[in-house]
Amino acid sequence: MNNRISALHCDLYELTMAQGYWHNAHNPEVVFDMFVRSNPFAGGFTVFVGLDTCIDLLQRFCFSTEDIAYLQSTNYFTTEFLAYLKNFSFSGDIYALREGQIIFPQEPIIRVHAHLIEAQLIEGLLLNTINYQSLIATKTARIYLATQRGTILEFGMRRAHGLDGALSASRAAFIGGASATSHVAAGKAYNIPVSGTMAHSWVMAFDNEEEAFAKFTAVYQDKVILLIDTYNSLGSGIEQAIKIGKRFQKEGRTIGVRLDSGDMQYLSKQVRKKLDDAGLPEVKITISNELDEKIIHQLVSSQAPIDMWGVGSKLITGYPDSSLSGVYKLAAKKSGATYQAVMKVSDNPLKSTNPGIKQLYRFYNANNEPVADLVTLQDEVVDGSKPIVFNHPVLDYRKFTYYPQGAAVPLLQRVVAHGKRTIPPQTLTEIRSFMLNTLSCFDDTYLRIINPHVYKVSISSQLRSIKEQFVSKSLP
Amino acid sequence: MNNRISALHCDLYELTMAQGYWHNAHNPEVVFDMFVRSNPFAGGFTVFVGLDTCIDLLQRFCFSTEDIAYLQSTNYFTTEFLAYLKNFSFSGDIYALREGQIIFPQEPIIRVHAHLIEAQLIEGLLLNTINYQSLIATKTARIYLATQRGTILEFGMRRAHGLDGALSASRAAFIGGASATSHVAAGKAYNIPVSGTMAHSWVMAFDNEEEAFAKFTAVYQDKVILLIDTYNSLGSGIEQAIKIGKRFQKEGRTIGVRLDSGDMQYLSKQVRKKLDDAGLPEVKITISNELDEKIIHQLVSSQAPIDMWGVGSKLITGYPDSSLSGVYKLAAKKSGATYQAVMKVSDNPLKSTNPGIKQLYRFYNANNEPVADLVTLQDEVVDGSKPIVFNHPVLDYRKFTYYPQGAAVPLLQRVVAHGKRTIPPQTLTEIRSFMLNTLSCFDDTYLRIINPHVYKVSISSQLRSIKEQFVSKSLP
Repeated sequence: MNNRISALHCDLYELTMAQGYWHNAHNPEVVFDMFVRSNPFAGGFTVFVGLDTCIDLLQRFCFSTEDIAYLQSTNYFTTEFLAYLKNFSFSGDIYALREGQIIFPQEPIIRVHAHLIEAQLIEGLLLNTINYQSLIATKTARIYLATQRGTILEFGMRRAHGLDGALSASRAAFIGGASATSHVAAGKAYNIPVSGTMAHSWVMAFDNEEEAFAKFTAVYQDKVILLIDTYNSLGSGIEQAIKIGKRFQKEGRTIGVRLDSGDMQYLSKQVRKKLDDAGLPEVKITISNELDEKIIHQLVSSQAPIDMWGVGSKLITGYPDSSLSGVYKLAAKKSGATYQAVMKVSDNPLKSTNPGIKQLYRFYNANNEPVADLVTLQDEVVDGSKPIVFNHPVLDYRKFTYYPQGAAVPLLQRVVAHGKRTIPPQTLTEIRSFMLNTLSCFDDTYLRIINPHVYKVSISSQLRSIKEQFVSKSLP
Repeated sequence: MNNRISALHCDLYELTMAQGYWHNAHNPEVVFDMFVRSNPFAGGFTVFVGLDTCIDLLQRFCFSTEDIAYLQSTNYFTTEFLAYLKNFSFSGDIYALREGQIIFPQEPIIRVHAHLIEAQLIEGLLLNTINYQSLIATKTARIYLATQRGTILEFGMRRAHGLDGALSASRAAFIGGASATSHVAAGKAYNIPVSGTMAHSWVMAFDNEEEAFAKFTAVYQDKVILLIDTYNSLGSGIEQAIKIGKRFQKEGRTIGVRLDSGDMQYLSKQVRKKLDDAGLPEVKITISNELDEKIIHQLVSSQAPIDMWGVGSKLITGYPDSSLSGVYKLAAKKSGATYQAVMKVSDNPLKSTNPGIKQLYRFYNANNEPVADLVTLQDEVVDGSKPIVFNHPVLDYRKFTYYPQGAAVPLLQRVVAHGKRTIPPQTLTEIRSFMLNTLSCFDDTYLRIINPHVYKVSISSQLRSIKEQFVSKSLP
């Protein structure tokens, strides 16, 4: 298989545990949950992204002859188990939220139903893909909100974590609200619009800005964005740009300018004024230089006249968190004909898991705004028309009765059955629209960049009672 | 070419500028420098890693027929320029430091000599590779120092930025001082030792720890590390581990234990005591759980009896910086028969570049400890036996005369000539040894985790005088 994905993309313990199950003939059907422990960036939400990549990779996830030979060389594995791996492919079911969904900590976002060995072997693939893309999509969505739904150009490739890391990051950034990427390979791979301006090296490769800008516009007549900060933004940079802008204007075309250093609030206002005074109100200002959502929020609040935002390092690496806390935990195992819930009981209640096979419901008010989510058991009947008790997931004394005002929608749906995709792949534009529309439905207070309102995620009374049984059993 | 690397791994502006140079018939020989603006993690040093990957990729960096077709579809490019790209391969020279070298801000670490178009088209590849791997190697070296040169198991794959990002990160982490990786594909790709323990899911897949540990040791007789924190580390967890440990001891074997939650200083001391009281002093304690160099430094200072460190998210993502500030700047261009220095003059002196074709010298004292680095022009004669003036790279009034005490060694060497590698590839173990030995030569004050001594990087008087000419020309 030419485009197989090596199943060696896993942690060693997945393989050694799998071998342990194999030789113990202990391979019951199980259910694993993926969930995130906290929202990144001290934010109010997380964007669930990477599902389609994950399903795609999963269907091509196998061990080649060389992979098996390598495993043999490590002396960890028996011939019998390696023979099993040779024929391994994932044949279980996966339930997941729709890609681009807005999610919150402790919610089941993916549920894997499979035999224990298979469920174990896909752990690394699943976590790597979802954690990374969700981190970057969430970061971009925050930046998008900070720009007040403006135009973001993702310029991150040079600071991304590997070439392939850069590719999937561009995918996630586009879903999260970026309008274009500078990374050409990502444009090709995912059909994302590509965009770029010019580098300082272009300006420095000629004798001065006048020559540099003239040579550039000798080749490019549209989509021209002149970089004006190589020597002196408010001096030669803007002056030469205005000359070109006026010439272009006479010819019915327009330029843009980019600032890449200095105080952006001050410079953008000065540049805007110079452009307007020169009769060039149509010329747009793009800025770049270590931007993130907090810096952008400040600039927007200060009414800095900035039209487009070039965002690189801090978007593409999910700075400052740099990873999402998504984990993959065993929730149930089959014993005889029925599933038995299991739970990790931690000294830290926040690290205890929710046991059993679960569904996630989102409750809406009459205006179709989400008001709270409820984690239930899969087979609970949730009647959206009746009052229902929302229990705090951890604290005993915090619960409330919710009186329905609108729909209650189950969010986990089956996306893979017997190892095969059951939902059609979506275009990135479809996922992006779904994400942005969903985000818009939430009250602004949940979307604030700093110190957001905490969206309520509760557990049903049935789930709570199972949890209590586990906790009381574990008390000394 | 099967294992080609798509040259679309670049920023769009590299291609549009290249086309601009092409159509302007402006393609002089130039020199670009790569350097980092600051040490990551507020640390005292950076580890230069990724060179061999970069040279390898560069030799396979080209445009396929599909790449060209994609570029055509964007409507940015002319038929003539696309015909040029079809035959593109890098044919210039590259000078670089040795991989694994300890470097400091503003030092030229890679120097590219090529025609302008070629030098421009490899920018993204070079920055992406070096920035990422150097970030991760630096992070790991800091963790290595914090453990007091202990045993680090890199467990980062599930939080890495893409599957491929995870691969090169494991490479960099090994060079930076990790002893093993959990990522099996990285073990195969780079011949890094692989390592792993067990997951909570193993323990939860059985009825209790007694059964879980028994089943594990039924299959594994060595390299057994039991995870003891699934239910109660100081209760059932350590008790069941001790049972197994005593049985193993009688058979002349040994186990290890791992803690993954709770207060590690308290728990490791309690677990150590219980193991010692049970006559199991040989059982080693591994810990994991969001470790970084600061947490490890505290634990080591508190004499927590920890033998091995499982480090994942924060190592593999370079948390909290998540990117290295490496940039690629034009330093000289050929005009007629001679190179002419060029310089970006910024309002912020720290963002101004060092003009000209440069060499980097490291000065040693009589004990062979590095004492200061000097950036010179390539053709300056540096006589290690005579006093020499070290000028602060930015501040006028800070300079000193250095009286030689030992060797002065030029660090940039040619590694690629006419597009072909001129140095043999090294094994990771060789690079790792060179890095660790080099690190050991520096005074400890430069290696401190927090608030380190600043290592001096100065510029020669000749370089300084060229810089001054540029600055005075740009003054209004």
